[in-house]
Amino acid sequence: MSGWITVAGLGPGSDAMVTPEVAAALDQATDVIGYIPYVARVAARPGLTLHASDNRVELDRARHALSLAAQGGRVVIVSSGDPGVFAMASALFEALEAEGGDPDIRILPGITAMLAAAARAGAPLGHDFCAINLSDNLKPMALIEHRLRHAARGDFAMAFYNPRSASRPAGFARVLEVLHEECEPERLMIFARAVTTPDEALRVVTLEEATPDMADMRTVVLVGNRATRRVGRWVYTPRGAV
Amino acid sequence: MSGWITVAGLGPGSDAMVTPEVAAALDQATDVIGYIPYVARVAARPGLTLHASDNRVELDRARHALSLAAQGGRVVIVSSGDPGVFAMASALFEALEAEGGDPDIRILPGITAMLAAAARAGAPLGHDFCAINLSDNLKPMALIEHRLRHAARGDFAMAFYNPRSASRPAGFARVLEVLHEECEPERLMIFARAVTTPDEALRVVTLEEATPDMADMRTVVLVGNRATRRVGRWVYTPRGAV
Repeated sequence: MSGWITVAGLGPGSDAMVTPEVAAALDQATDVIGYIPYVARVAARPGLTLHASDNRVELDRARHALSLAAQGGRVVIVSSGDPGVFAMASALFEALEAEGGDPDIRILPGITAMLAAAARAGAPLGHDFCAINLSDNLKPMALIEHRLRHAARGDFAMAFYNPRSASRPAGFARVLEVLHEECEPERLMIFARAVTTPDEALRVVTLEEATPDMADMRTVVLVGNRATRRVGRWVYTPRGAV
Repeated sequence: MSGWITVAGLGPGSDAMVTPEVAAALDQATDVIGYIPYVARVAARPGLTLHASDNRVELDRARHALSLAAQGGRVVIVSSGDPGVFAMASALFEALEAEGGDPDIRILPGITAMLAAAARAGAPLGHDFCAINLSDNLKPMALIEHRLRHAARGDFAMAFYNPRSASRPAGFARVLEVLHEECEPERLMIFARAVTTPDEALRVVTLEEATPDMADMRTVVLVGNRATRRVGRWVYTPRGAV
């Protein structure tokens, strides 16, 4: 029997957001590979080997998947959210480019964190928007700043992934400085932590009220555009132009 | 019994991408409201009234939902893809702002077209990216151009929704002109039509090869960033900076 690799998005946390096609792929797998907390979401069963690894070893994981599939394994690489948004799909293609071959690959989308967070808050991404990874592991802070300024000047709503970690506490403070230079102080922001999990916490503030400690690595940060407003407890961006 | 409104994302077309929480909401509904082809995806059953309406009546639909819920209805407004991405969630909050009240509202995310299209193609949105609605129903073409240029200059990958319709055939030709001014001719583009449906068609071309007739209203168009490349039949954007 020939092997395959599926890169599957588990969504932000709740099993009620796992799509049926992702559940079916997990049911057929011989091997599940991924970051420890994501693999922990997959139930153990006979015939399934769980390969949990630490953060920042994406290419090792991808090579492992290619190797297992070449031996006939039915391999699911699990990502949180959507595998194509700052997750394992790109890493798999980087490894494929280096190693060659034409394995049977499928990418199965999932509910990405920014859309789950937006849904909890209302519709803050209801008009044109950008998604920016604030981690500077793989790109310089200067490029992040450059993109932030273009996003703000284009009046895009924004979603920030990986806003802040213990190893780079200053980065998100700098991001807030750039937003202060580009946006009005009343601009609405949403700090959405661990959305759809028991630890979920949602906080809506203005840019003026935002502080770096409101974000950690489990937080997605949303920034409205100029027209984003509150209605009751909700935040939404109108469909039309300002 | 008190009524409620749920705005639910049905995903791009395949039932295998409808999340369990959306399926559960539809099972509990007394009324389903939406654009004709989306309501057609919901199975009829005793106790459920299907309210299908034509395009461009989003606010009417939202007011109808508020009115039915106020009478005790359990109302699901269905959107294709994700309800917060160029869909019905913002329209509901616009209607709520105008009409007042504090109804029981939930927004349930779905797999949005750009992420389903990206998954089919590989991982073209694997780094920072923007989503832009090219419809000029609700915003001037000048604002679309302004955002396009900022997205290109920030070297974001891009996803275009509603790229072209019979009523505005010239708009997408203008978008391609702007991309030619801002990007190199080898830039990779993906025209993804009716993804996950029986009519699915995926075409990968360079900007130089792209022509306006490659898009219609069932197409999502993806544009890579400077680093986006092919590996075998796949297209992906590396995780690092160029």
